[in-house]
Amino acid sequence: MSVESWEHQAQKGRDILQDSIPKQWLVPAEQLPPITQKNVVDFPKLGGLLDERDLRITELSATGLVAEMGAGRLTAEDTVVAFLRRAVLGHQLLNFATEFLADEAVARAKELDRYFQQTGKLVGPLHGVPISVKEHIGFKDKTCNTGYVAWIDNVTTEDALLLQLLAKAGAVFHVRTNQPQALMHLCCSNNITGATLNPHNRTLTPGGSSGGEGASMGFRCAPLGIGTDIGGSIRCPAAFCGSYGFKPTAMRNPMTGIKVAAIGQESIHGVVGPMSSRSLDDLELFQKAVLDQEPWETETSLVPLPWKTVAPTRDMTVAIMWGDGIVRPHPPVVRALQLAKGKLVAAGIKVIDWEPYKHDHGWEIISALYYPDAAGLQRQMLRDSGEPARPLSEWVFSFGRATPLTHHETWALQHQRDVYRDEYQALLKRRGVDFILSPAYPAAAAVMGESHYWNYTAIWNVLDLPSAVFPSGLTVDSKLDALTEKDKNYKPRSKVDEREWLKYQSPERYESAPVALQITGRHFKDEETLAAAKFVEGIMKEAKKVSRL
Amino acid sequence: MSVESWEHQAQKGRDILQDSIPKQWLVPAEQLPPITQKNVVDFPKLGGLLDERDLRITELSATGLVAEMGAGRLTAEDTVVAFLRRAVLGHQLLNFATEFLADEAVARAKELDRYFQQTGKLVGPLHGVPISVKEHIGFKDKTCNTGYVAWIDNVTTEDALLLQLLAKAGAVFHVRTNQPQALMHLCCSNNITGATLNPHNRTLTPGGSSGGEGASMGFRCAPLGIGTDIGGSIRCPAAFCGSYGFKPTAMRNPMTGIKVAAIGQESIHGVVGPMSSRSLDDLELFQKAVLDQEPWETETSLVPLPWKTVAPTRDMTVAIMWGDGIVRPHPPVVRALQLAKGKLVAAGIKVIDWEPYKHDHGWEIISALYYPDAAGLQRQMLRDSGEPARPLSEWVFSFGRATPLTHHETWALQHQRDVYRDEYQALLKRRGVDFILSPAYPAAAAVMGESHYWNYTAIWNVLDLPSAVFPSGLTVDSKLDALTEKDKNYKPRSKVDEREWLKYQSPERYESAPVALQITGRHFKDEETLAAAKFVEGIMKEAKKVSRL
Repeated sequence: MSVESWEHQAQKGRDILQDSIPKQWLVPAEQLPPITQKNVVDFPKLGGLLDERDLRITELSATGLVAEMGAGRLTAEDTVVAFLRRAVLGHQLLNFATEFLADEAVARAKELDRYFQQTGKLVGPLHGVPISVKEHIGFKDKTCNTGYVAWIDNVTTEDALLLQLLAKAGAVFHVRTNQPQALMHLCCSNNITGATLNPHNRTLTPGGSSGGEGASMGFRCAPLGIGTDIGGSIRCPAAFCGSYGFKPTAMRNPMTGIKVAAIGQESIHGVVGPMSSRSLDDLELFQKAVLDQEPWETETSLVPLPWKTVAPTRDMTVAIMWGDGIVRPHPPVVRALQLAKGKLVAAGIKVIDWEPYKHDHGWEIISALYYPDAAGLQRQMLRDSGEPARPLSEWVFSFGRATPLTHHETWALQHQRDVYRDEYQALLKRRGVDFILSPAYPAAAAVMGESHYWNYTAIWNVLDLPSAVFPSGLTVDSKLDALTEKDKNYKPRSKVDEREWLKYQSPERYESAPVALQITGRHFKDEETLAAAKFVEGIMKEAKKVSRL
Repeated sequence: MSVESWEHQAQKGRDILQDSIPKQWLVPAEQLPPITQKNVVDFPKLGGLLDERDLRITELSATGLVAEMGAGRLTAEDTVVAFLRRAVLGHQLLNFATEFLADEAVARAKELDRYFQQTGKLVGPLHGVPISVKEHIGFKDKTCNTGYVAWIDNVTTEDALLLQLLAKAGAVFHVRTNQPQALMHLCCSNNITGATLNPHNRTLTPGGSSGGEGASMGFRCAPLGIGTDIGGSIRCPAAFCGSYGFKPTAMRNPMTGIKVAAIGQESIHGVVGPMSSRSLDDLELFQKAVLDQEPWETETSLVPLPWKTVAPTRDMTVAIMWGDGIVRPHPPVVRALQLAKGKLVAAGIKVIDWEPYKHDHGWEIISALYYPDAAGLQRQMLRDSGEPARPLSEWVFSFGRATPLTHHETWALQHQRDVYRDEYQALLKRRGVDFILSPAYPAAAAVMGESHYWNYTAIWNVLDLPSAVFPSGLTVDSKLDALTEKDKNYKPRSKVDEREWLKYQSPERYESAPVALQITGRHFKDEETLAAAKFVEGIMKEAKKVSRL
């Protein structure tokens, strides 16, 4: 294809987006903050563009919304319209959407309201909850491009299984969200709808690849969102945008109908999982709503493990990983870990330090297995349209080996992966550790285009451990997080360490960025991991109250 | 390596075997039946070589043995010695062993007896049960060649995880058993210890690749055995030898320490499972003993599903698959299905006919995925020693494509595999079918060297459905199974159908062969599948008694 024609195709993607925006809620440009205003998180409140009621609705969690609707104090229609209005505003500020689904969403909300009026019952546990959806999760009769210009015209024939289940539980899908080219940056820009911005600081990336979801959560365009993660793509956006994200153990959530180029690649399983703007409870609400419908009866690769309700407990050992032994985390991230440690200890939890185990080895395995074909398929996808590779695509295509792995090399790596998993599990047991509390990324967030280092999240993908991200409650602070003399004299351990450390020239580069924590549990201990996350977040927020539990 | 040197290496394997045979129990050649005597199943009883007590012990099931030992009426030592004696005799007649473990086994039995004497308790649910073990399941400090001359000197550093768990449950390993070259014939011959024979008819193969186990079960050299299966390698030997075998759903039984050339290959998962000489109950005893120890805590690829105790039920729909639409089963196999249908209907079970769904497509997928590298690794293994490929190795190496698959082709096949699995599951649900009763093979057993057609068993591997094989109670009958005029005029559907049909020149080729049935359940319904197998076997054996349930 010629340059003209890929641009022509890309324009189609932009047209789909533009045509879908509900124009009645667009805010005139002159009422928007200047692009030089970095932090827009509070703009809905301060800008006076949403009325009190819409603000109140959009500040609620999914759990809270369902409770309000169940009590008859709120309609699904009002809920969906409020989030649509906020999402339109969010899109104007952050460019996070790829397609609005306003008419369908409002129509579905009205249906739900009628059902409630007639029966006095909610349709299901997600009745009326607006959910934003990463673009590559297929919607029937809609296009699905997965960040590739070559796929602009691809129309999906059936809703992804996950969407079917969520819809049955009462969810309403009101907006589809942006992703990077090739779906593999921890950043969010492509040649179709461009780059998505971070609502806390628009010089930062919202993270990726579920970056549109990150922005959606950070700006509260929806109480719940759906991301996918093969190296951090749920957790980095959640972390960078001050929200919540959960990467379940693989083979729990249904993947059918989620479009990726390398479909059938299973050396490293991508997973789909919830993101939330408000709470860890909402992540669990989502998981339970999905797994209660036994998706393994339809998608037989899934493991038939029902979702268990697990109460948080003090009877656990939390290991704090201060660093991965490869890249030193930035000062704000260390400060959040220190705060967590203090609060955990004060709450009487057993806390130890986690010495990372061969994380470089883990990275060698996963980085080689992302693209056993040396990214041949991805490069072909770009050639198919003629679109140029974006810098972070080149970055990720260069992971692993320069030439395709042989089958034997692939098998050997898969075997090493399994051995590494078993070794890590044995170590957790030997050290008596239930959960590892760690950074989600070396920085609080990444400056646009700079999200190079994946291994604070990818390590839990190669190990296939469930992992949740939540806000520590801290943001980058120019005083508290200023480089000390000791910091300034830090001698990086490697080029990679140096590259990441030098990005922290000053806290101001990361102004207003929220600082997240990541908690990781044992294989298939998804429920326990979310419960532990709730416990830790609880004591971070209200140490006093929780200590009386 | 030169021809001389591979022969030299192979001789080492034979030396290990010869040195290990407990000479005190060897029977002088002149007391053995002539090699022209095909059926030797009853030789232990008729030959007068085992005393009454040894006969009585070796006729018991594992469940029965444990009960006797628990009641103090039998010692582990007597049990192990009785089975060792029978195994030595069996080996002289069938060449099924690769190494005897007599001293270790007797020593371990004595330990168990001491424990029982001191505590009045059994060590575990498999206390004192002798188990024969397919050679490629690794024993600490013993060689493990997996049927390759190149690996004759390979010494294992740790017991396979499965062996560790079984040993903890009280099992005693007394003999290791033969497998074919490259581990991939439904037959059992290699360049090291040669060919194993079928105890029911020594011109037939015991099946493979767990052929040594087949012979061990058929001759009752052990009440329980351990086989592995990636296309029928547990079920064909069980079927051909008139015994019992169970292929669980993948990712339930632990694979760590089971040695294969393509370790890390996971497009099609090989599984390990129990074989039994006496009963389906013993298969369950084995499964429960293993899974009660939560192997997923050590081997994290496994699914954390505890073994459930499931009672047989009449509330099920059984579909009978009379053929797979590709290869017509031989008359004795059809006769067994007819008998089963009659008994099931008489017992009031809902029975329908199963129309196979794209079994040719299933075969295309699995046959391509066995060797994505066009068997390059396997051929290299043969070149490494210089040993010649045996005819059935060439046969299986020629499955699939002639050149290695690209990564993209492999992923596409893996995706097709998952789609096929989901389609099959949807079909089972739509038709309301719980179990499929089918042949295990087109013939009752295969004549030595003729086991070419895999797809009556391999189909359940590509679909990853749990599948059990048990004797129908029938054997090939020269009168009842004679070719009718209609049979003689059968026009095969294809070359493959013709090849398999023409093998049935007369029932006499399969004289004395037992006829098995195979029952297959839904994904992860392992417990239900074994329960259904028990029900069907029960009514086959004693229709009257069961109908009063």
